[in-house]
Amino acid sequence: MDQLASRIERTSHSGLDKLFAPAQPNQIIFSAGYPDPALFPKDALDRATQHVFSQGQDKLLQYNTAAGLPALRQKLADKMAQKDGIHTDTDHIMLTQGAQQAIDLTARLMLNKDDGLVVEGPTYIGALAAFQAYEPTFYEIPMAEDGMDMDNLEAVLKEHAVKMIYTVPDFQNPTGVVMSLEKRQRLIDLANRYDVIILEDGTYRDLRYDGENLPTVKSLDTQSRVIYVSSFSKIIAPGLRMGWLTADDNLYRDILALKSGADIESSNLMMSILNAYLDENDLQKHIQIVCDNYREKKNAMLDAMAKYLPSQARYTKPEGGFFVWLTMPEDFNMADFLDKQLVPQTGVRFTPSTNLFPSGTIQNGARINFTGESIANIERGIQELGQTLTAAWKEQAAYVEAD
Amino acid sequence: MDQLASRIERTSHSGLDKLFAPAQPNQIIFSAGYPDPALFPKDALDRATQHVFSQGQDKLLQYNTAAGLPALRQKLADKMAQKDGIHTDTDHIMLTQGAQQAIDLTARLMLNKDDGLVVEGPTYIGALAAFQAYEPTFYEIPMAEDGMDMDNLEAVLKEHAVKMIYTVPDFQNPTGVVMSLEKRQRLIDLANRYDVIILEDGTYRDLRYDGENLPTVKSLDTQSRVIYVSSFSKIIAPGLRMGWLTADDNLYRDILALKSGADIESSNLMMSILNAYLDENDLQKHIQIVCDNYREKKNAMLDAMAKYLPSQARYTKPEGGFFVWLTMPEDFNMADFLDKQLVPQTGVRFTPSTNLFPSGTIQNGARINFTGESIANIERGIQELGQTLTAAWKEQAAYVEAD
Repeated sequence: MDQLASRIERTSHSGLDKLFAPAQPNQIIFSAGYPDPALFPKDALDRATQHVFSQGQDKLLQYNTAAGLPALRQKLADKMAQKDGIHTDTDHIMLTQGAQQAIDLTARLMLNKDDGLVVEGPTYIGALAAFQAYEPTFYEIPMAEDGMDMDNLEAVLKEHAVKMIYTVPDFQNPTGVVMSLEKRQRLIDLANRYDVIILEDGTYRDLRYDGENLPTVKSLDTQSRVIYVSSFSKIIAPGLRMGWLTADDNLYRDILALKSGADIESSNLMMSILNAYLDENDLQKHIQIVCDNYREKKNAMLDAMAKYLPSQARYTKPEGGFFVWLTMPEDFNMADFLDKQLVPQTGVRFTPSTNLFPSGTIQNGARINFTGESIANIERGIQELGQTLTAAWKEQAAYVEAD
Repeated sequence: MDQLASRIERTSHSGLDKLFAPAQPNQIIFSAGYPDPALFPKDALDRATQHVFSQGQDKLLQYNTAAGLPALRQKLADKMAQKDGIHTDTDHIMLTQGAQQAIDLTARLMLNKDDGLVVEGPTYIGALAAFQAYEPTFYEIPMAEDGMDMDNLEAVLKEHAVKMIYTVPDFQNPTGVVMSLEKRQRLIDLANRYDVIILEDGTYRDLRYDGENLPTVKSLDTQSRVIYVSSFSKIIAPGLRMGWLTADDNLYRDILALKSGADIESSNLMMSILNAYLDENDLQKHIQIVCDNYREKKNAMLDAMAKYLPSQARYTKPEGGFFVWLTMPEDFNMADFLDKQLVPQTGVRFTPSTNLFPSGTIQNGARINFTGESIANIERGIQELGQTLTAAWKEQAAYVEAD
């Protein structure tokens, strides 16, 4: 049907749906951003839910407002002030359907068709899916081990009209990289100089397993040009679909109007449950339990990688977050390897790099999640990945030599 | 800031936020589409929630899929087959954040900037807010008491390139009008002839207080060109934020990709609660209770209107839904009357017609909700509206005569 909006040519191939395809028995899923369901505070959420129902408020199931439950916004204001150096108020915070909707609404605020948008290369697959709906012109900035290449960014900003920069400075999805303080400051300076909005995605910020957190980019912002989004999906549970956004002044007001048009508001019941959970429990303590668990899993994965991956493989050693980024030599095609060898032979799945660069040109990388599977599965899955990858690489090398 | 997307010029003035502005004490809110909170099945939802938590499924709080919980989609397939003449399957149904998100996603599927979009005049304010984000060219088709003026529609389709027609055929928001069967068939015939997609909004369809339902437009569709959306907000509770969409073949597949980009998926916990509620309760019986209550309120409002409104006032007498549509003579400005006289003098609020036509040119209409307030408030509010309106009309008539 040639009647559809032109955005469909891009959005129908995001690859996002594949990540959440139901697992077959015995598959090992390193491809999705699944938290470990054993860590969900199910009993505490159950109690919180019973409390909100038993408080007998009919309004619990009524409409709330586009911005969301005021008490919950206040908790977010307090949390961001204490943990993120972000000082704002309830009139500049809104609840969203995960960070994903906050990203979508920010793109909707900023992007006309063909507008310049900077993303890290590679970047979060869901952000690309959201952005593609607005048909921007993408500029990919290569990632170094301390964040985006800022010289490259400056060259792009000098040469092209760019409206917005999307960054995940803490435990970047998919590389696990943390942007250095120096680069955070330079990012702000460049955005100020070239009059660009920054969309900072702090989804993984609370999940640090080693070392100390750096200031958020938003905390360095003196010109109200950083929009900060984050989520409860990775620290509490994704089944709540609760995220949030903070922005200043007219940016906030305009996004709020867009939120109304997108889905009126978030669920009053769900916001009330989350609010009660936060009243009755120590979130920081819960996050500590989650971090202790994921630290072990990350170490198990890195140990297994050291043991089983071929010597040609390079991978990041993240201090937090959900992902390790694996790269093979440039001419190795990870998507082909995944579809033709790894999944059929072992049932192990990862996300190939072609889906994580808007250009789709970088083929030799893979995003590997370490939070969703058990340590036993991590060890077995990485062993199978390593063996299959070693064989595939040998085969390719032999083929190239013979060629 | 001149950096924002051009859509902001339209979306920041939808008027939608005003509808949900928190009420002051003693205000009577006829402006919003609030259901009566006393009718929410709070205890049954509480029990359903306890059951889903006690079943001990860790996956309850994990990601599900973009389409949503399969068991809930099956129930929707059954419901639509039994009540709406729509025969589809779980692979063509998705859960959304209310019907609002389903409307937004359909607009996102269809509309490039400046594409032709037909809406009823007046139409649902939230749909306008969703559509404005895609910057279409609107064509307003005047409403008659049996639905859109089909000759006018045909003339528009003949003259202009139109991609989509948005209609609320059952108890239209805001007029309360039901589209006749003849017009439903003609709508389909015109859409077929001019190759146009129809977005059918069935949000109020289950809320019939008198008479018999007509077939859905979707049930008359033989060319897979009707996308049907509906919601649990009005029949169960809006605080769940649960709606759904069904479409055929590639339309469905492309909308699903857009749903992923918009918010990944709907809340697994909320879908599970709703699914358990539907397992444990008779939805049709609950709807009957709701209908019995709203019939009384509607009759109370119509009785009060007959008693208190000035003779110049015309109003619809709906057989279902949420709204009565009130019109005064053409030169009477309802928005001015609301802001300058009615609210300051009485605290009574309605939605003025200027917000309900994309052109904003029709000034003499008002959407009056009868479900959200008590019968006592309906009587008092309509009395105050009638007295204030009578005085305002006299004043205007005197002024015109003296002029």
